[in-house]
Amino acid sequence: MASELITGIGELTTLADGEERRRDAALVIDGDRIAWIGAAASAPAADRRFDAAGGAVLPGWVDSHSHLVFAGDRSAEFEERMAGRAYSAGGIGATVTATRAASDDDLRANLRRLRAEAQRQGTTFLETKTGYGLDVETERRSAELAAEVADVVTFLGAHVVPAGIDPRAYVDLVTGPMLEAVRPWVRFIDVFCETGAFDVDQSREVLAAGRAAGLGLRVHGNQLGESGGVALAIELGAASVDHCNHLSLADIDALAGSDTVATLLPATDLSTREAFPPARELIDAGATVALASNCNPGSSYTTSMPFCVATAVLQLRLTLDEALRAATRGGARALRLSDDTGTLVVGGPADLQLLDAPSVSHLAYRPGVPLTRAVWRKGARVV
Amino acid sequence: MASELITGIGELTTLADGEERRRDAALVIDGDRIAWIGAAASAPAADRRFDAAGGAVLPGWVDSHSHLVFAGDRSAEFEERMAGRAYSAGGIGATVTATRAASDDDLRANLRRLRAEAQRQGTTFLETKTGYGLDVETERRSAELAAEVADVVTFLGAHVVPAGIDPRAYVDLVTGPMLEAVRPWVRFIDVFCETGAFDVDQSREVLAAGRAAGLGLRVHGNQLGESGGVALAIELGAASVDHCNHLSLADIDALAGSDTVATLLPATDLSTREAFPPARELIDAGATVALASNCNPGSSYTTSMPFCVATAVLQLRLTLDEALRAATRGGARALRLSDDTGTLVVGGPADLQLLDAPSVSHLAYRPGVPLTRAVWRKGARVV
Repeated sequence: MASELITGIGELTTLADGEERRRDAALVIDGDRIAWIGAAASAPAADRRFDAAGGAVLPGWVDSHSHLVFAGDRSAEFEERMAGRAYSAGGIGATVTATRAASDDDLRANLRRLRAEAQRQGTTFLETKTGYGLDVETERRSAELAAEVADVVTFLGAHVVPAGIDPRAYVDLVTGPMLEAVRPWVRFIDVFCETGAFDVDQSREVLAAGRAAGLGLRVHGNQLGESGGVALAIELGAASVDHCNHLSLADIDALAGSDTVATLLPATDLSTREAFPPARELIDAGATVALASNCNPGSSYTTSMPFCVATAVLQLRLTLDEALRAATRGGARALRLSDDTGTLVVGGPADLQLLDAPSVSHLAYRPGVPLTRAVWRKGARVV
Repeated sequence: MASELITGIGELTTLADGEERRRDAALVIDGDRIAWIGAAASAPAADRRFDAAGGAVLPGWVDSHSHLVFAGDRSAEFEERMAGRAYSAGGIGATVTATRAASDDDLRANLRRLRAEAQRQGTTFLETKTGYGLDVETERRSAELAAEVADVVTFLGAHVVPAGIDPRAYVDLVTGPMLEAVRPWVRFIDVFCETGAFDVDQSREVLAAGRAAGLGLRVHGNQLGESGGVALAIELGAASVDHCNHLSLADIDALAGSDTVATLLPATDLSTREAFPPARELIDAGATVALASNCNPGSSYTTSMPFCVATAVLQLRLTLDEALRAATRGGARALRLSDDTGTLVVGGPADLQLLDAPSVSHLAYRPGVPLTRAVWRKGARVV
């Protein structure tokens, strides 16, 4: 792969420790790595040259939470919920039915469509989950298809207990044959620890089985109430606990004292009218925070990390720099990736984006305006 | 201009009275008008054919409130405000200084850039205002430049009293030489009726002068408090009163009983952390509501009507249909345009957009995702 010099950068945000946004910078990509960063005036030669025309350059988004293996559309359910009306035919079960009935090609096409859509908005690293199969074979093929398209796959057999199945029997299925079937394709195991899904003891059992199988741990916790999911995630050393809408002061302190990332999903909160998580308090306490899309057809059907960043600044009261860090390095931490993922540093991954704006501040200053002008992933221009 | 048949429409939303969204429809454009709407199976022949490939078709947005004649960038001020810090160098005055110093070509380029950006997001009819000149010559050239690019221009000399000028003398300037200078280019007069800008008596004087000069009336009112702007707008039969964050029950009743449109600017509320207006109460009382971008470099630097529609559904609790109507027909009413503007009806304007989504519901179901696939304005495909 040829080297490429990016010049004309209006503002460079590397997100490396201690670095501020800077002007008059240039950057060289060589292969899939950043080879050089420095003052534009002293840029080395490269095989190719790209003119950023004054736009802002920053790391690509690391979207650490999505559910892209699904079929069907729940827009009618969404509209009814927004209008304050009940909708009996919806829920995760509706997507499970559609996903089980879909062909591999249909599921693959949907995955690719959403990955491409995310990429057009600057996402360069994407986690996605199983969880709309809930039987051994559909979970297995979900994991295999996800691994074709996503960078990291998480096993979420413990999404809900399918209708008509005894919870005890289902936990045994998830921790036994289902886990074994998905194992070749997945790096993490996840559980929805919430009233109506899995209680703390069931969740602990699921996570323990995943750990015994060599998987990293993730938890959906404290979305609808103080479910105990956060405390469990910390107890077991999970990489991330996601949602975190309802936290006690003890939860916040425990997160701050742990290696478990608090992953916030603000698009979900808007689409479900759930109270926003205490983002400011988490950051002020010293917790590591990630922002992710939670793209799924029920509670958050967006791939837009720029929307999540804008919402985090406008409504969760993160500063712009905190929001950028959460949407890049925070996501990388939540996935236990290398420290240089989500930053722009020499020797680190050449995953970056160029905005049609002079500063990253425009991501929140200009909400809703599509600002992604170019994206490089693993050193190759993909948008 | 040749006729064009649009087929393959996944869902057609005409917003005509009494019509629901429908499937299996087709539409013919002839010149700048809609020539035919009906079942796809009985579509007539046309010179050209466009395949909507299953996407949703709806009227283009009518953005009835923007401030696009300006120079400069206030992103630093925005960031400080979001971080809860004071920023002394900002405010309307900063934009006035930059605008006065800018060349016609610079102002024109900025106007065209923002108009094009709005159009790429589905806006087909755009109002814009003067108001960053605040002297006779800069207001005059602002009006002239605006008229080159916008569909309707509003005179907002009464935006704030410039520093160092006596308020009495400034009202005389606005209602005298400034009004005379802008008169050839503008259709409306507007005033910022608020503490710190113009009080009710001053506002009445400004509006009366505009009316005497043959202009329609608009008011910025009740953004920061119960300013009396709403009552004044109704008293004088203004076309619209904009912001409406702080309304008494009497204000809501009076709006419902008037021809004055309540124009809501939700992107502004997010960017200033002002309480949202009582949108649900306005609609339930029977008031006509419009949604607009208020695009300006200080309090709402977005051209994105899709973002305004999504926010209206997710946070102002409008239904999808109410939000669509407010962003099209509501805007048209606020500008006193023909009844068919903002709808798709035979004989009406061929201003329409195609989404990369099967239903208009995706505008709120998929917040932040750029969904505009094609736009026709005055019958011509422009995106």
